[in-house]
Amino acid sequence: MENTGKNILEYDTVALNEEGDAVVILDQTLLPGRTELVSLRTAQEIWNAIYLLQVRGAPAIGVAAALGIYVLSRGIETEEFETFYGTFREYKEYLNSARPTAVNLSWALDRMEQKALRAGREERRPVEEVKEILHQEALRIRQEDIEVCRKIGEYGLTLVKPGDGILTHCNAGQLATVKYGTATAPIYLGQERGYGFKVYADETRPLLQGARLTAYELSAAGVDVTLICDNMSASVMSRGLVQAVFVGCDRVAANGDVANKIGTSVVAAVANYYGVPMYVCAPTSTIDRNTPTGREIRIEERPPHEVTEMWYRERMAPEGIKVFNPAFDVTDHDLISGIVTEYGVARAPYEESLREIMGRKQRES
Amino acid sequence: MENTGKNILEYDTVALNEEGDAVVILDQTLLPGRTELVSLRTAQEIWNAIYLLQVRGAPAIGVAAALGIYVLSRGIETEEFETFYGTFREYKEYLNSARPTAVNLSWALDRMEQKALRAGREERRPVEEVKEILHQEALRIRQEDIEVCRKIGEYGLTLVKPGDGILTHCNAGQLATVKYGTATAPIYLGQERGYGFKVYADETRPLLQGARLTAYELSAAGVDVTLICDNMSASVMSRGLVQAVFVGCDRVAANGDVANKIGTSVVAAVANYYGVPMYVCAPTSTIDRNTPTGREIRIEERPPHEVTEMWYRERMAPEGIKVFNPAFDVTDHDLISGIVTEYGVARAPYEESLREIMGRKQRES
Repeated sequence: MENTGKNILEYDTVALNEEGDAVVILDQTLLPGRTELVSLRTAQEIWNAIYLLQVRGAPAIGVAAALGIYVLSRGIETEEFETFYGTFREYKEYLNSARPTAVNLSWALDRMEQKALRAGREERRPVEEVKEILHQEALRIRQEDIEVCRKIGEYGLTLVKPGDGILTHCNAGQLATVKYGTATAPIYLGQERGYGFKVYADETRPLLQGARLTAYELSAAGVDVTLICDNMSASVMSRGLVQAVFVGCDRVAANGDVANKIGTSVVAAVANYYGVPMYVCAPTSTIDRNTPTGREIRIEERPPHEVTEMWYRERMAPEGIKVFNPAFDVTDHDLISGIVTEYGVARAPYEESLREIMGRKQRES
Repeated sequence: MENTGKNILEYDTVALNEEGDAVVILDQTLLPGRTELVSLRTAQEIWNAIYLLQVRGAPAIGVAAALGIYVLSRGIETEEFETFYGTFREYKEYLNSARPTAVNLSWALDRMEQKALRAGREERRPVEEVKEILHQEALRIRQEDIEVCRKIGEYGLTLVKPGDGILTHCNAGQLATVKYGTATAPIYLGQERGYGFKVYADETRPLLQGARLTAYELSAAGVDVTLICDNMSASVMSRGLVQAVFVGCDRVAANGDVANKIGTSVVAAVANYYGVPMYVCAPTSTIDRNTPTGREIRIEERPPHEVTEMWYRERMAPEGIKVFNPAFDVTDHDLISGIVTEYGVARAPYEESLREIMGRKQRES
């Protein structure tokens, strides 16, 4: 636990502790009121932290899973690779069940698994070496996230101009990644370069990530940010206050349909009506070419109490009322002006442009 | 104060007490947790109740203002009409300043003023008689509201069919009127006739009228109602769960632009994208032919704390964060499929159809 006078942006969202035996996360469910670091050591602790959104945001979930499966691997006591791998698989499947929508969770775990298989089964390295290879890979995934976000920021910045109004939904900020964020990366880079953006942050019901996290981290960085309720997007757009929407992303289907935090498709329909371009900031790790369209993306449904009573002094809806509480929604690709990745901006038709982006990634890595 | 086991629908939203010296309202800021009746006697008590949304919803505000100005008139001690009228005007202007967007407030006060002027100045009746005329007029305004809502319900019911999914925003329910509500009138009449509607109620941030009031009154009436956050409208529409949107209305401009609770234009843009018809339920008392378009409607802005801390156990956004908190928004007439009044359903072009509706009203009254 920690509660110093540090700026929120000086904390690591997700990191490995010095001893390498715990994932340390900034507990996002307590912000902005309390700043607490939590150390996760067991599989259940890691699963809970992801399920309860103590660590959240597709990129940060990916990093937490990579560091987490490493921490768990380290504790598997055997010198026999297939025994090691059997337990590794169990851990992997368990962690992967924490949240279904963001592809980064399975993406990071798959990448770790491939590393383990190559080193242990193909190259027949001793288990201790496999563990060290997993250690390095987890740190690499974390480090890459910073670079990926920075590049997304650079590409995103080409889509706006100084003084623009930018609307964002949920938190695809530094708190959802290791640094810069995805949707906020152009905002942070613009801030460093004196662009003077005016940002409107949707509060993002039911869990208020926009109010608690985005408004918090952007104002800590000195960005001109105004908090609005989710139902005020049309009011700011109709007044001409918004020149672009930037949102993050949990999974991009092959056709460009995008699953992201609940409410994203509402913002997209509103932006479409008012002629404001809608940009999705998506590391290529969120592009899932095995999912043909948004219809095949499984949308997580969460418990009713998040809507009816969480955060409230008194219960805010009658007892026993039915609640529909999807955590994500799917935005049709025809509402999306561009998908900003670390390899450039994909434009419609997305089937083609995403294939091109993934090709560029393969060639350059 | 009162707190019995009565069904919420058995309470009067707004009424005159038996002695005729107080407006009695059901305090809507305490629902659904507590059911309290409040008696309003002074001008400041009435003004506060409207400003603080203890009584809210355009029709109910109109009725409260009519009953309120009568209660205040009753206390003006003079036998000289012009002296009486001077004080009446002061009360009227004061009450009229409580909320700027809903036209019903000024509509009801104007109607009461015209009655007073005709009786006192033109017909030279004694002040005591003028007061009794105001008494009867206030009761008539209240009684008419019931009939108007029932007719809106009948016309609205022609726009949907049994089993339909209906989405509504904010509370344009019985709690916003004397009986039936406006947007809920088709739902209540359908319920009496076994239509089996499935209703989705937007919670309506920041003050949660949908969660606290609409979900409450509809479930008390046995309607199948599901609570959603405002940013989930696209999720239910894209799943094909909604066949029509019904919302209430605070002011209709001559061109059909509609001011209503913040978020209405968001629902409208979403409905437009998913091809769901958007109906505005508007008593003719909300049609303001002196306002040419929505651009001329003054939108009330309310204090930031409604967004950042009201209802919460802890402050939900960082200290000092900028907040934009408009209470209403304007929905462009081209997003509106029909305006349902007590004289029929107006369709585009609205300039023409609203003129026709108002003509019908004049002929029939």
